[in-house]
Amino acid sequence: MIMKNNLLIVHGGGPTAVINSSLYGVITEALKSDRIDKIYGAIGGSEAILKEKFLDLSKTGKDKLDLLLATPGSAIGSSRYALEQKDYERMVDIFKRNNIKYVLFNGGNGTMDTCGRVSKICKGDDIYVVGIPKTIDNDISIIDHAPGYASAANFIAVTTAEIGQDVKSLPIHVCVIEAMGRNAGWITAASALARKNKKDAPHLIYLPERIFDEEEFLEDVKALYDELGGVVVAVSEGLKNKEGESIVPPIFKSDRAVYYGDVSSHLANLVVKRLGIKARNEKPGISGRASIALQSSVDREEAILVGAEAVKAVLEQNTGVMVAINRVLGDKYQIKTGLLPIEEVMLHERILPDEFINERGNDVTQEFIDWCKPLIGDKINTFISFKDIQ
Amino acid sequence: MIMKNNLLIVHGGGPTAVINSSLYGVITEALKSDRIDKIYGAIGGSEAILKEKFLDLSKTGKDKLDLLLATPGSAIGSSRYALEQKDYERMVDIFKRNNIKYVLFNGGNGTMDTCGRVSKICKGDDIYVVGIPKTIDNDISIIDHAPGYASAANFIAVTTAEIGQDVKSLPIHVCVIEAMGRNAGWITAASALARKNKKDAPHLIYLPERIFDEEEFLEDVKALYDELGGVVVAVSEGLKNKEGESIVPPIFKSDRAVYYGDVSSHLANLVVKRLGIKARNEKPGISGRASIALQSSVDREEAILVGAEAVKAVLEQNTGVMVAINRVLGDKYQIKTGLLPIEEVMLHERILPDEFINERGNDVTQEFIDWCKPLIGDKINTFISFKDIQ
Repeated sequence: MIMKNNLLIVHGGGPTAVINSSLYGVITEALKSDRIDKIYGAIGGSEAILKEKFLDLSKTGKDKLDLLLATPGSAIGSSRYALEQKDYERMVDIFKRNNIKYVLFNGGNGTMDTCGRVSKICKGDDIYVVGIPKTIDNDISIIDHAPGYASAANFIAVTTAEIGQDVKSLPIHVCVIEAMGRNAGWITAASALARKNKKDAPHLIYLPERIFDEEEFLEDVKALYDELGGVVVAVSEGLKNKEGESIVPPIFKSDRAVYYGDVSSHLANLVVKRLGIKARNEKPGISGRASIALQSSVDREEAILVGAEAVKAVLEQNTGVMVAINRVLGDKYQIKTGLLPIEEVMLHERILPDEFINERGNDVTQEFIDWCKPLIGDKINTFISFKDIQ
Repeated sequence: MIMKNNLLIVHGGGPTAVINSSLYGVITEALKSDRIDKIYGAIGGSEAILKEKFLDLSKTGKDKLDLLLATPGSAIGSSRYALEQKDYERMVDIFKRNNIKYVLFNGGNGTMDTCGRVSKICKGDDIYVVGIPKTIDNDISIIDHAPGYASAANFIAVTTAEIGQDVKSLPIHVCVIEAMGRNAGWITAASALARKNKKDAPHLIYLPERIFDEEEFLEDVKALYDELGGVVVAVSEGLKNKEGESIVPPIFKSDRAVYYGDVSSHLANLVVKRLGIKARNEKPGISGRASIALQSSVDREEAILVGAEAVKAVLEQNTGVMVAINRVLGDKYQIKTGLLPIEEVMLHERILPDEFINERGNDVTQEFIDWCKPLIGDKINTFISFKDIQ
């Protein structure tokens, strides 16, 4: 008789449009194995491990499983709970008590740190712990990209193209679009994929990897407004000045944190005040990581794949590793998965490399576009504008 | 031999997700008539009439025409140019010089005002002027609804449902979503269609039809946060206090206008400062009227229909009228088009009636939901949440 053990899947941090697709991959792959009994979901992130809030997902019907592919948020919840040393120490007992031999953590850099610590604590106890990468910010290092990013990239690209078409048809103002990504400009940069033709939106792109210079910004906006009438600017929520501080003055300080206003609103106001040009701001916010209509199909497939690969990895008794997505060099877009030691992943945060940003720091380069385009497929609609014919 | 004349179509004001679908309806219907020669698009709104910037659209191929159905913005441009009496007086000559006998204006209240004035100026000159309704705000009176509204309603409903799912999975903050509609709360109200179950987002809805009371708002948010952890609030950009002023203090005054900050940002800050609860704000902005993925198919079909009906109306020598959408009473959603004298339309701005708003002024009623639901079809996805099962 084959010894059966339980598997536990834990989600950490903010959701993406495809985190539930990875969960789908985990469940469907685990169901194939005769060595896995229950497929536990930790209901509410790593905090749920300590509370032993486990729900058996192995009896979920196919129709319900399919809903995971089109459900935003995290279907098993998540948390930002900061685990302490004493929390880690309790885990081996909890896993053993619940016959859990396989543990998967799906998340970004913070969750991978947790994953690495849990794997260390479990070493020698016949418990295997593997990470599944996930982040809209694309700031996990070493791997080519993480599931979640491509959908966020597709969202900002399509949204910018559509806003660009609107602004072009009634070109009387400057429109500043704010994208998520506080330290890394990957999402903001993807707005460039909106362009089909020269002079298409976005006309300017500002990233947190470069110091933001207000005077250069106003100069750039003014010149483009004089030429086009309608100007679309994509900015990261994390823009900083040369002192390394947010470009928005703090509006409120509490005991725990400093609160800043929106970067897009700040810049739109600046355009109105300093240039006397009508300006508005857009902040799609959470919808950029929750939109199912603008999910990237490449992203969804890859998310399912890394979930399945993580199950295979724990069954093969790997531990302390994360499933990686590596790009195969060649003309056609192709990826290969692999396993990376979690310590290597944790060494640094991944930001946009210099060769992806233009010299003036107000746009991306063709290299970035070539790198990013295959991730979103060919989702940008072709629009018609008789205005351009006239 | 049949006498052939030209038709002119003019777009006014801000675009909708289906204004180009009405243009599609105009062109395809006009192509059927042997009394219409050229189908002119005024390139850039009513201003283009004075500049005689007309582009013949009658030779547009079918493949290009089809693109209109999925193109946001206005494919022939638009304007917010304020016409003066002397501008109107020049128009009869311009129309005659260009052999234009049929004139269509597509727009909201402002454009219908223009349409009415042009029809008066042209009376007795064998020139026929008809209006096509269009507004995301749904503030055109008498008619059941205007093309453009249903897509904006669908956008906010789907987006709120998706944000709600995200917030529910990591319920640690209050999220304030801002919708367009400065004087009328129709779009904001449609966020209610996001709900499949009780306790689904949006948990609170604030409309410009009611005086906004800060203390009641904070009370409502606090109670819901204590119960749910994650609270989603939908607010109109036009919320006003009991003095009838914007609830956001003015941030900048120019010679021409007063600029206010974002209502959503203001309210999120208020939650942080006064309740000490983490809060964020979302302002999808223009994307709410430009999203093709979230276009309502009902809206698109109706937009095509009113465009075609307007062509029929001018060919039958109607003038000074607007195509109306009337709802046929009955169990099944059904509409009937008609023609309304423009003067009647212009009498008042349409706001949400009292029976569509609940007593506390923090939600809509079931009557509103029953009225609005057929317009967006059944576009809200069904999501799965294992969290709810636990």
